[in-house]
Amino acid sequence: MTRIEVPDGSLFGLDNLPYGVFSTQGTAPRVGVRVGDHVVDLAATLGDDVFAQPVLNGFMAQGHARWVRVRERITELVSGDVPDAAVHAVSDVRTHLPFEVADYVDFYASEHHASNLGRLFRPNAEPLMPNWKHLPVGYHGRAGTVVVSGTDVVRPCGQRKAPDEDSPTFGESRRLDIEAELGFVVGTGSELGSPVPVEEFEQRVFGAVLVNDWSARDIQAWEYVPLGPFLGKSFATSISPWVVPLLALETARVATPPQAPQPLPYLRESSPWGLDIALEVELNGQVISRPPYREMYWSPAQMLAHMTVNGASSRTGDLFASGTISGPERDQRGALIEITWGGKEPIQVGGEERTFLRDGDEVAITATAPAASGGRIGFGEVRNRILPAKGAQR
Amino acid sequence: MTRIEVPDGSLFGLDNLPYGVFSTQGTAPRVGVRVGDHVVDLAATLGDDVFAQPVLNGFMAQGHARWVRVRERITELVSGDVPDAAVHAVSDVRTHLPFEVADYVDFYASEHHASNLGRLFRPNAEPLMPNWKHLPVGYHGRAGTVVVSGTDVVRPCGQRKAPDEDSPTFGESRRLDIEAELGFVVGTGSELGSPVPVEEFEQRVFGAVLVNDWSARDIQAWEYVPLGPFLGKSFATSISPWVVPLLALETARVATPPQAPQPLPYLRESSPWGLDIALEVELNGQVISRPPYREMYWSPAQMLAHMTVNGASSRTGDLFASGTISGPERDQRGALIEITWGGKEPIQVGGEERTFLRDGDEVAITATAPAASGGRIGFGEVRNRILPAKGAQR
Repeated sequence: MTRIEVPDGSLFGLDNLPYGVFSTQGTAPRVGVRVGDHVVDLAATLGDDVFAQPVLNGFMAQGHARWVRVRERITELVSGDVPDAAVHAVSDVRTHLPFEVADYVDFYASEHHASNLGRLFRPNAEPLMPNWKHLPVGYHGRAGTVVVSGTDVVRPCGQRKAPDEDSPTFGESRRLDIEAELGFVVGTGSELGSPVPVEEFEQRVFGAVLVNDWSARDIQAWEYVPLGPFLGKSFATSISPWVVPLLALETARVATPPQAPQPLPYLRESSPWGLDIALEVELNGQVISRPPYREMYWSPAQMLAHMTVNGASSRTGDLFASGTISGPERDQRGALIEITWGGKEPIQVGGEERTFLRDGDEVAITATAPAASGGRIGFGEVRNRILPAKGAQR
Repeated sequence: MTRIEVPDGSLFGLDNLPYGVFSTQGTAPRVGVRVGDHVVDLAATLGDDVFAQPVLNGFMAQGHARWVRVRERITELVSGDVPDAAVHAVSDVRTHLPFEVADYVDFYASEHHASNLGRLFRPNAEPLMPNWKHLPVGYHGRAGTVVVSGTDVVRPCGQRKAPDEDSPTFGESRRLDIEAELGFVVGTGSELGSPVPVEEFEQRVFGAVLVNDWSARDIQAWEYVPLGPFLGKSFATSISPWVVPLLALETARVATPPQAPQPLPYLRESSPWGLDIALEVELNGQVISRPPYREMYWSPAQMLAHMTVNGASSRTGDLFASGTISGPERDQRGALIEITWGGKEPIQVGGEERTFLRDGDEVAITATAPAASGGRIGFGEVRNRILPAKGAQR
C-alpha cells in the first residue's frame, strides 16, 4: 500500500482531483485521477467498469449526483493507503484524449479579443458587430480533429490570398497562430426541443479543459465570408489531458464584467459563472502572455443556454470553448495576431523578433485558479510542437 | 421462401439497392436493403453481425471492396427466393437514422443559390464573394441534431432583429425555411495530416442521402456575422432513411458546369463527379420546385478534397451536404427565401399565398437519377412536419 504525498504548493491537491485517461507501458487506456505528482487508477480502486473505458463519456453520462459521490469516495481513498498497483508517477503514464468529443462549438466571448480582431480585420468599421453584446457569438468546429496535448501539429496547407495578390495560391500557412481558450465539457445532455436554462449549467457540465484552437490566419481570412471559419481552424484543436471538475471551481466563481445592454431573459444568470482563472502562454519556454479568464464578457452558463435555446439537443462529450481569452493589456492577449497586431509589432522571444509560429516552435498553455483551501489548483497544460507542412506546393 | 416482385417502373429495382436501418414491431433496429416495396433484413440473410448493428457505420468502415462484394451478394440473393422472415413490406417497418453522424459539414456549392442569397442579403454588392469560384465554401454544422425523415420539426425560438427594430427580441422564428440538398456519407475515413485527393472520392464515400437543412432566416440574419450560421441552422437537419450507394450512381455522373477560373490543382478532377439527379420539393402535397443537382458548380469529390486539404482527418459517418440546390429558373430553387424572393413574391399553395413555413406544414423532398438499366432509381424521401414553437415568449 502507498500513502500519496502531495508536495507543498502542488496544483493537484485534494481540492482539484481532475480526471483523465491514461495508460502505462503495455496496458489499455483507462480512467485515472491526478493527485500531486501521481495518477490513481480508478478502474483498479473504485470497482466500477465505467472507469475501465478508454474515455470519460460513460462516467460523465452518469450525472451530477454521481460525480459528487465519486469525488467524495476519491477524497477518502487518497487520504488513506492506496494499493501500490493503482498508483503511478505522472511521469510514467501516457495521457490520451480524455473524452470522445460529440459536437465542438467555439464561442467568441472576450470583448477585448473580438474588438481587437474587429479593428484588425475591418479597420474602417465599428470593432464589435451589432449582435455581439446581445448574444454569445459562436460557431461549430470540427469534433474529429480535437487532439490531446502532446500531439504534434502539422502546419496546414490551403488557399491564401494576400490583399495585394490577384488570385489565391496554394501552399503552407504563413500566418499560423494560437488561440488560448478554456473549454467546457457536457456531462449530461439535453433532448431535442428542450433548451437548457442558465441555472442548469452546473448540473450538466462536467468540467473544464485548456484549449489551443490553432488558427491559420491567412487561410481563414480568404475563406471565411460569408459562412465563417472552416479550414483555417479545422486542422487541429488541442486540449489538456486533465478535466478539472466544475465541482473544483466553486472558489473561482466571480461575476462577469457588467453586461450592458442587459441580456434577454434566457441569458440572465441568478448566480454568477464568471471564473477567476489565470492563464499563461509560453512560446519556446518564454511566457508571452497572461490571459485573465475573469475578463470574459459571456459566462459558460450563458454559452450553454444560448447554444440550446433554439431547441438544439446537447450530448455527453459536447465541447464548447470560450474563444480566445484576451485581457485589456497587450501581454494579456491570447493570440499572436493580437499580441503582434497582425504581425506588424513583433515580440522578442529567445533574443529574436517573432510574429506568427515557425516550424519547430513549441507552445504551452497553463492555468491556475483559487482553491477552496486557500492555495491554487492547476489545469495542467496543453503543449504542442509545430511540424513542417507535408508536401506543400511552395 | 419469397420471391420479391419489383413492380414495373419501381425506383427501387436491382440497380438501386439502398441501405437503411429499420425495425419492425418489438424488434431491434438493424440494417436492411430496400427492394421494390420491400425491405430485406441483411442481418438475417447475409450472416454478418455488422448488419445486426443499429447503424451502418460498421459496414461502411469495411471499405469499398467489401461494399462491392456485398452489393453482388444482395443482387444474387434477391434474384432468387428469400426466407419469408427476412422480407418485410416497406409499409410495415419503421426507419431510423441510418448512420451515426461523425462531423457534419454543409457546403454552398450552387452558383444560382449563392448568387440569389448574395442579392437578397447584400443588395448593393457583387452577389458572389471573391472566394466563391476558387473554393467550395463550407462550414461545420451540428452533427447531434441530424434527424431522420418523419421526425417532427419544432419551430425554433431565438433572437431576431428586423432591420427596422432597434434591438433584438426573443421569440419564435417568423422566417422558417427549407434547404433542399444532397448529402454524402464518408465510409472510410482518412488520417490527420493526409488530405484526400479528388480521385479517392469514390473509394471513400459510401453513398448519398437527401437533406433538408432547415433554416430560421431571421435568427440566421442576426447572428451570422462574423462567424457564420449557428442557431439559425442547428435546431434540426433532416435526412432520408435510405442511403443510395455511390455504386448505384455511376449512370448519373455528368460533368459539372464549366469552372472558370480553373480551380487550383488539388481541386481538378480527372473524371467528372457532377450528378444528374432531379429533385422535387413538395409543400403540403404540391410540388413547388424541381431543383436540378446537375447545375451544381462544385462536385462532391471537390468538396471532400477541399474539406481535408488542410490535413483535417475524416471519419466513418462524416456527412457533407451540398448546400441548397438551385437551378436558374424560379421553379428550380431549393429554398423558400429564393422562391419567394425574401418573402416579397409569394407563391400559391393550396389556393393560398405562401412565403415561409407555417405550423402544420409538411415538406417532402424526393429525387431520382438515371439507372444503369435505362429506367430511374429513387432516393425515397425526406418528409417532415412543422410543429408550433414550445414556450415562445411572444
